[in-house]
Amino acid sequence: MSQNGHKVIGSRPIRHDGVDKVTGRAVYGADIQLTGLLYGAIKRSPHPHARIKHIDTTRAEAHPGVRAVVTAQELPQIADKLADLGEAIVNLRDASNNVLAYGKVLYKGHAVAGVAAVNLHVAQEAVELIDVEYEVLPHVTGVLEAMEDGAPVLHEDMKTTSMGEETDKVSNIANHFQHKMGEPDDGFAEADVVVEREFTTQTVHQGYIESHNATALWNEEGQLTIWTSTQGAFSVRDQMAEILQMPISKVKIVPLEIGGGFGGKISVYLDPVAALLSKKTGHPVKMTMTRDEVFEATGPTPGSYLKVKMGATRDGRLTAATAYMAYEAGAYPGSPVGAGAGCIFTPYDIPNVQIDGYDVCVNKPKTNAYRAPGATNAAFATETIVDEISEQLGMDPLDFRVKNGAKEGTRRADGPVHPRVGCIETTEAALNSEHYRSDLEKSANGKVRGRGVASGYWFNFNGGRSAISVSINPDGTINMLEGSTDIGGSRASIAMQLAETIGLEATDIKPYVVDTDSIGYTDVTGGSRTTFGTGYAAHATGLALIREIKERASKLWDVPADAIDFADGVFSYKDDAEKRGTFKEVASQAGDAGGPVVAQVSTNPDGSGGGAFATHVVDVEVDRETGKVDILRYTAVQDAGTAIHPSYVEGQMQGGVVQGIGWGLNEEYIYNDEGSMTNASFLDYRMPTTLDLPMIETIIVEVPNESHPYGVRGVGEVPIVPPPAALSNAIYAATGVRLRDLPMSPPRVQKAVAENGG
Amino acid sequence: MSQNGHKVIGSRPIRHDGVDKVTGRAVYGADIQLTGLLYGAIKRSPHPHARIKHIDTTRAEAHPGVRAVVTAQELPQIADKLADLGEAIVNLRDASNNVLAYGKVLYKGHAVAGVAAVNLHVAQEAVELIDVEYEVLPHVTGVLEAMEDGAPVLHEDMKTTSMGEETDKVSNIANHFQHKMGEPDDGFAEADVVVEREFTTQTVHQGYIESHNATALWNEEGQLTIWTSTQGAFSVRDQMAEILQMPISKVKIVPLEIGGGFGGKISVYLDPVAALLSKKTGHPVKMTMTRDEVFEATGPTPGSYLKVKMGATRDGRLTAATAYMAYEAGAYPGSPVGAGAGCIFTPYDIPNVQIDGYDVCVNKPKTNAYRAPGATNAAFATETIVDEISEQLGMDPLDFRVKNGAKEGTRRADGPVHPRVGCIETTEAALNSEHYRSDLEKSANGKVRGRGVASGYWFNFNGGRSAISVSINPDGTINMLEGSTDIGGSRASIAMQLAETIGLEATDIKPYVVDTDSIGYTDVTGGSRTTFGTGYAAHATGLALIREIKERASKLWDVPADAIDFADGVFSYKDDAEKRGTFKEVASQAGDAGGPVVAQVSTNPDGSGGGAFATHVVDVEVDRETGKVDILRYTAVQDAGTAIHPSYVEGQMQGGVVQGIGWGLNEEYIYNDEGSMTNASFLDYRMPTTLDLPMIETIIVEVPNESHPYGVRGVGEVPIVPPPAALSNAIYAATGVRLRDLPMSPPRVQKAVAENGG
Repeated sequence: MSQNGHKVIGSRPIRHDGVDKVTGRAVYGADIQLTGLLYGAIKRSPHPHARIKHIDTTRAEAHPGVRAVVTAQELPQIADKLADLGEAIVNLRDASNNVLAYGKVLYKGHAVAGVAAVNLHVAQEAVELIDVEYEVLPHVTGVLEAMEDGAPVLHEDMKTTSMGEETDKVSNIANHFQHKMGEPDDGFAEADVVVEREFTTQTVHQGYIESHNATALWNEEGQLTIWTSTQGAFSVRDQMAEILQMPISKVKIVPLEIGGGFGGKISVYLDPVAALLSKKTGHPVKMTMTRDEVFEATGPTPGSYLKVKMGATRDGRLTAATAYMAYEAGAYPGSPVGAGAGCIFTPYDIPNVQIDGYDVCVNKPKTNAYRAPGATNAAFATETIVDEISEQLGMDPLDFRVKNGAKEGTRRADGPVHPRVGCIETTEAALNSEHYRSDLEKSANGKVRGRGVASGYWFNFNGGRSAISVSINPDGTINMLEGSTDIGGSRASIAMQLAETIGLEATDIKPYVVDTDSIGYTDVTGGSRTTFGTGYAAHATGLALIREIKERASKLWDVPADAIDFADGVFSYKDDAEKRGTFKEVASQAGDAGGPVVAQVSTNPDGSGGGAFATHVVDVEVDRETGKVDILRYTAVQDAGTAIHPSYVEGQMQGGVVQGIGWGLNEEYIYNDEGSMTNASFLDYRMPTTLDLPMIETIIVEVPNESHPYGVRGVGEVPIVPPPAALSNAIYAATGVRLRDLPMSPPRVQKAVAENGG
Repeated sequence: MSQNGHKVIGSRPIRHDGVDKVTGRAVYGADIQLTGLLYGAIKRSPHPHARIKHIDTTRAEAHPGVRAVVTAQELPQIADKLADLGEAIVNLRDASNNVLAYGKVLYKGHAVAGVAAVNLHVAQEAVELIDVEYEVLPHVTGVLEAMEDGAPVLHEDMKTTSMGEETDKVSNIANHFQHKMGEPDDGFAEADVVVEREFTTQTVHQGYIESHNATALWNEEGQLTIWTSTQGAFSVRDQMAEILQMPISKVKIVPLEIGGGFGGKISVYLDPVAALLSKKTGHPVKMTMTRDEVFEATGPTPGSYLKVKMGATRDGRLTAATAYMAYEAGAYPGSPVGAGAGCIFTPYDIPNVQIDGYDVCVNKPKTNAYRAPGATNAAFATETIVDEISEQLGMDPLDFRVKNGAKEGTRRADGPVHPRVGCIETTEAALNSEHYRSDLEKSANGKVRGRGVASGYWFNFNGGRSAISVSINPDGTINMLEGSTDIGGSRASIAMQLAETIGLEATDIKPYVVDTDSIGYTDVTGGSRTTFGTGYAAHATGLALIREIKERASKLWDVPADAIDFADGVFSYKDDAEKRGTFKEVASQAGDAGGPVVAQVSTNPDGSGGGAFATHVVDVEVDRETGKVDILRYTAVQDAGTAIHPSYVEGQMQGGVVQGIGWGLNEEYIYNDEGSMTNASFLDYRMPTTLDLPMIETIIVEVPNESHPYGVRGVGEVPIVPPPAALSNAIYAATGVRLRDLPMSPPRVQKAVAENGG
């Protein structure tokens, strides 16, 4: 947590958007009010799988408060128009069909029609007046069942792609890929200990508090404006232009504050429907989801089945690993199995690896990104097996991880070779932590206690495109526009990097997240890219300002610009006391030498956000009679590269851990035989509350990312990866029973303990 | 009206903000709604001059709907704090005292206190509950009376500045200055014809439809945001920071659409009061003026007294001119007499000139800018005398003007020497116009008809500071942010200059007027600078984009950037057909060669907006019995330099003419003996309506301004200058009676005709 000679980076200023947020003035998506606003609602399928035979909207349209009804008929007929254009178009057609079903509904809650009315109550009433005639089809919601021959098929025209080639086989398996490195058979032959296990995880939701929302205004010139909560305004713009087949310059997205996203607020759901309703009515139309709509019709992270095998020598060296990974895609192809495959063995240096991944459609909502998507499922398998192997070898599980840890030069099974990473440093920091070195006290109440550890990896995406636009005020302070939506304190973390570069305080920068017409293209806030990628742009902007201020100082001081030095926040010319000044001092005069100082800079760095590694330690207490697991202490250790604002790094770590705990212990979509989710509310979908949790302790490790001027790595996603495995290992330590099916909820734990004589 | 080889400049695209304005979606100041909004009202003085003995706010504060009351006590005590800092501070103190009176009230309607309440009705009721004890003082509202010894003195501490030196004399004369060139006595001795006349003009208001408004939010961090209709967001920011003595970076101004300004929406009135009320209540506070408040408490253009003498030789050569110009400043110093003095003889090349100007305080609202401020008063004198001299010499008045017209190299009495200007070209165009060459038919109804002409000049201010920020969309279209508020179509005229520079269509640019935190410092929209100065920045931005796209094309085509040509909107490399493309084509690929293309550019050109000259021709019909003057035909001729969007140039010309007609024929502040304006409503303050006017014909002359890459001159102000004089000359032609007092309203015309035997 050293500041490494930095003045702003590593400090903990109050966030720029703090006051507006704590006083309730920050404007979130559902706060938008426009003159003449209409309210929209969605008619949804009651069936998990059915053919739409007929939609009759006449009763709804006859309602005196209804202004318009739309169905998929009014979306551009993308599939027909663009049938020849290959893979990209399939996704586009899927995106369109997911917004408003065409031909078939593929999950309960699938949108069938939208209605706009004078108020929300009328809109909801009108939804009931839309008559849809269905031919109900058999459905399948489990990944293994969906892969079976004879399973109900979601897409009659979808042929399985296998090992990169399209086959003739029509099935729910959209894709089967394989990564292979070395000779796993030889590796296992070399091993003294081989463990192979099967695992299942259930569908879980990001559980953001704010539900999806979109307000659309399609004006008389065909200019569409959308106000919405999103992780990526430009990404919404791209999707709208594609789904609605309109010029991108006719679409403007205004991103409002976001009440949680975690990957789930990238795809559009309501936005195109609101847009069509606005076009049809000439009024702005606002739509917000109820909580059950959020659960049933937005993208959770998938349930999965994994079969993983790992082998090690007696002296604790991993020799081989294989994985069979089948992930549910939901209604349309595109599960995170590919990402999971890239992470599953990545904390380890293993010479012989084979991974087979399957992307499988089921009658559930289309899965979407959720914090390190695919990696948590994968780590649940690997990290519990590593625990088992360590035990069999009689090794401390963290020592085992250090011994086999990935390092610079280690090749991942899916291809890339690690640059400088902090895998071993993180594991060692966990090993040496006060928590891990402490003794776990015995329970005084008859319950049993145990400690578990697990590690995790997440790529962090490449930096991507980001733009920063700045103007210098007469007092030398700076207004800064950015295109990255702020879902976790990035206004602060980006402003701090600009401040550091030019020698100002964080509070001297006023950051604003602006709409898509007010800043250069900026990629989505996701993949842990923002503090890296938009921070990279902020640093580049700082350098541009320094160059420009040198030009101005050159005129003011009548010396060559390239003879002016900038160091420690001070411009100077040789030792001339008259010709020196802080950034603020010189910038405030710079306007006299050629007008206001401004800049807009965009970047698209070659380097990546730097791989992120985490190792977690958890102590649990298990009530064998009820199966309830209490968390006594939890420590998350993580390599942040450089922690720009340590409080927000810690916040990301704590938030990720808590979500991982929910996933590990309680959260799941529970389906009945009719393919209907039976727990689509926060009362029944059990997320952890503060009463369930201790304070999550954090240890930030800083192994700088060489691709970033300040060494930043993405930090937001990897903390969700280790928790389920760490908890499973801790429950084993307490009870002697290994749980390999998530969630490890009280009924499951109680049953497993009872059956396995814990 | 030739397009001079331009593709966009000179065309007439639909304005970018047109749809929002005609559909009522454009957001004006009073449209703003914020959560928890309070409504403010102002307690105003009923006396034109009084000492404030005591303000008792207790009854108002006790009203259950009142949230706060503020008086000048809560403004920073600027006079005390900054007494030593000289001239600038006097203005600052004046600005502060004009917002909330301190010690004395200086005009009826002067603000004394502000109140914020739960709704507007309560606020207005609460205003009546504020008890102010006054010591009423004698008042003076006429400029000549105010200059007399023994007149009531508004500012007991204000010493007259004379010829640049502060004297010991305390009077209402804030300043007397003199411009002298040559020897006027010698010049008059040389003359064969000398005419000397006295003139009076009355106070007139800009008469914008939208009244002043301001909504303020002072948040818990001391960050102040103001939403308001203004001609200059940055100018409001500067004023707020000064009046409230707060750091400029703590103030953000959001300029909304403006329903007319004409110079009157630059100074702040409500904004600081709304800010103080917001600070005190913790809520946003909205204030809007009623029409009578607009008339009585915002800045009109001054009443004035002029005595002007001009001499010419028998062969029609002007030899000398002198002017005594006394302008009312209103309650605080700062009339536009200086600007009037710079314009009064400027259409002419006169070797011997003396001008004496007097800036005089009277118990009326502080005057403010109004379209070519000071120049219309001045031209009323000069242009009617020129008419009289031409008549005495038996010369056509336009021939006389051509003969004596100012040209490149002519020196103005106040110093500057004309660059290339279009004075003579404009006069010649009027002379050769179909209108002027046509015969004026006799009236068939017993009324009399006459034709008059007059010329006018306005400086156009220097270009000033402007910033433009752009981002290129994936389809090659461009989003453009600007800091210039749009009061007359400048979104279009600026976007067109960017489009022309880079070879796009006007509709390929989406212009936005943004807040002070979103763009570099941009000077006020006024002084006819915007299409010149911000257009200058748009052109510079276009050049920056061309440079950047060449860099990107260099990577895409693998050729040196400086070998790439850009002409006629096409980038090309030699004759290589593979290596060429329109701006859109190349720009849409440029993102692949280094991320999104963006730029922000600021300029502060050395050159000026180019002097603007106008000559008008009007035919009137006068009813001798009622004194009513009907306008039969009106043609305005003007040098626009280069007309970017001819429709808006014509619109400015027509609007200026109509305001000049109102000023000439009807408009005036009518004061009673108590110093109270008796016609402070649009029912009683007689502005021209469409029923009073013919279609105003326009002839655009284009003599390019050499200081601008496209030759733009400011066009917004000079068209108001000639009308009163042209009308007076036309009434003379019809009736044989010269009117030298404005307005030439029916009673005055009837009386003059009756007395002078017309």
